[in-house]
Amino acid sequence: MIQKLIQEIKKKNAPVVVGLDPQLGFLPGFLMQEGIREFGESLEAVAHAVLKFNQGLIDAVADLVPAVKPQIAMYEQFGLPGLEAFRKTVDYARARGLIVIGDVKRGDIGSTSGAYALGHIGKVKVGEKSFCPFDEDIVTVNPYLGSDGVKPFIDVCNENDRGIFVLVKTSNPSSGEFQDRLVDGRPLYELVGEKVAEWGESSMDGDYSNVGAVVGATYPEMGKILRRLMPKQYILVPGYGAQGGTAEDLKYFFNEDGLGAIVNSSRGIIAAYKNAAYEKFGEEGYAEAARQATEDMLKDIRDHI
Amino acid sequence: MIQKLIQEIKKKNAPVVVGLDPQLGFLPGFLMQEGIREFGESLEAVAHAVLKFNQGLIDAVADLVPAVKPQIAMYEQFGLPGLEAFRKTVDYARARGLIVIGDVKRGDIGSTSGAYALGHIGKVKVGEKSFCPFDEDIVTVNPYLGSDGVKPFIDVCNENDRGIFVLVKTSNPSSGEFQDRLVDGRPLYELVGEKVAEWGESSMDGDYSNVGAVVGATYPEMGKILRRLMPKQYILVPGYGAQGGTAEDLKYFFNEDGLGAIVNSSRGIIAAYKNAAYEKFGEEGYAEAARQATEDMLKDIRDHI
Repeated sequence: MIQKLIQEIKKKNAPVVVGLDPQLGFLPGFLMQEGIREFGESLEAVAHAVLKFNQGLIDAVADLVPAVKPQIAMYEQFGLPGLEAFRKTVDYARARGLIVIGDVKRGDIGSTSGAYALGHIGKVKVGEKSFCPFDEDIVTVNPYLGSDGVKPFIDVCNENDRGIFVLVKTSNPSSGEFQDRLVDGRPLYELVGEKVAEWGESSMDGDYSNVGAVVGATYPEMGKILRRLMPKQYILVPGYGAQGGTAEDLKYFFNEDGLGAIVNSSRGIIAAYKNAAYEKFGEEGYAEAARQATEDMLKDIRDHI
Repeated sequence: MIQKLIQEIKKKNAPVVVGLDPQLGFLPGFLMQEGIREFGESLEAVAHAVLKFNQGLIDAVADLVPAVKPQIAMYEQFGLPGLEAFRKTVDYARARGLIVIGDVKRGDIGSTSGAYALGHIGKVKVGEKSFCPFDEDIVTVNPYLGSDGVKPFIDVCNENDRGIFVLVKTSNPSSGEFQDRLVDGRPLYELVGEKVAEWGESSMDGDYSNVGAVVGATYPEMGKILRRLMPKQYILVPGYGAQGGTAEDLKYFFNEDGLGAIVNSSRGIIAAYKNAAYEKFGEEGYAEAARQATEDMLKDIRDHI
């Protein structure tokens, strides 16, 4: 899977993923109105708006970037209709040639992690038939439960040519509370990073592993160290833009081959139409605003790496 | 919420929760056949069997225990039909007077954790209407992202009188890989436990907090220390039975008031009919087997605490 991602990154010259995090406040009013006209004030109305919103965004950026990253919490909050919109978003993005990174941050004890893995990146057998319930290409995984919470995902990656990104150092302000605590003089995130590198050996795909890592753009100095500790890991880098990470900060996350990292931006792109810099597009032009914001982000990143 | 749980535990003299983890292998063949007759070989067929299985289990144990704990991974693996069965299981259990602990182990950065919290234990507003998308009473939360991944859940607990159990020391064999690492000479799980106690202060409900902790029965010595570090926390204790925890191990998890812990058993109860000790019930008698296994577990625990 990671070679497929690399190929698409090279083809589009874009180590960038667009985060599809449709918070209620990001949904254009005209799409919400359309949903409410059709379904009344209901979760189905929101789900309708979410899917329409995403389809517009996907159409606008599909030729610019290799991947999209729907954050499942933003769909799960709208219950079953929301998760149906998630599933349809995955299908729509895949049909437009995009790789889909499900930002699900799942992780549990062995057999339970195995169930999540099957549901998101694997296949479930019922009698003679097989089903791919959510069918993402790659998912994010939480490492707090250790190897037996992560390995079932790797097994499923190997069976189905899929990938995972394991949380190592997250982009949020309080990520240091536990992740930065010193163990034998070294922060916990370094130990997690080393473990990710070790896990990754069992799922190599060319020079890189299908087991990658998540490291926030908001912590560039830590990114520099983690880059060295995990030379074969692709790093998914959230936190660029709205959360404060700059293109200058990103250079530490890449390897000398110019590969090894993919940078996420969510609200900076999907809610660009609400930003003063893109307000000329208006609400109806949210997708064109997102396209322009993506092009601006790509230029910013290409100028710095 | 925690007072409601305590009241039910006292009323039934049962500090026990039945884990509803319907793995494919646990589903009685006659229910799968029923599903397949109605829906063909499909995820809907499995979801049908899962819901029927759970309804039978809930009917069999509702007067014996205060709560059930559906593990969402076991539903999510069957996609949207599986999650619909989860939702209906929550409703069915609630209608039978049970408290529902959603074992979801969610956790993310601030606004994203907030979305999970609204979806699972809160309300989502659409126009003038409000919806409770999954509507559990309590959910489990992963602490790896620190305070700003947990506090949004606590805010939602306070708005809706709900609860959370934060993972502190999990029951699985590899939980020590990160959780046991020494920080200033003390294992990480102790620091997480202290943080849970601190978070819990903002959601007190009588003598206990709505913010509880998860500590595995498989680590009784650690349970003893964590009990002391978190005097106001209810501890959800997985790992009894099939994972190796014994009733003797459980005494350390309770406070001197006889309260403070609730012990989970999943496969030991719901798949009892597959166990030699209960095979006389047969597959069709899976619910009676579960009831007998619950009574046996209650006796075992009452004898030791």
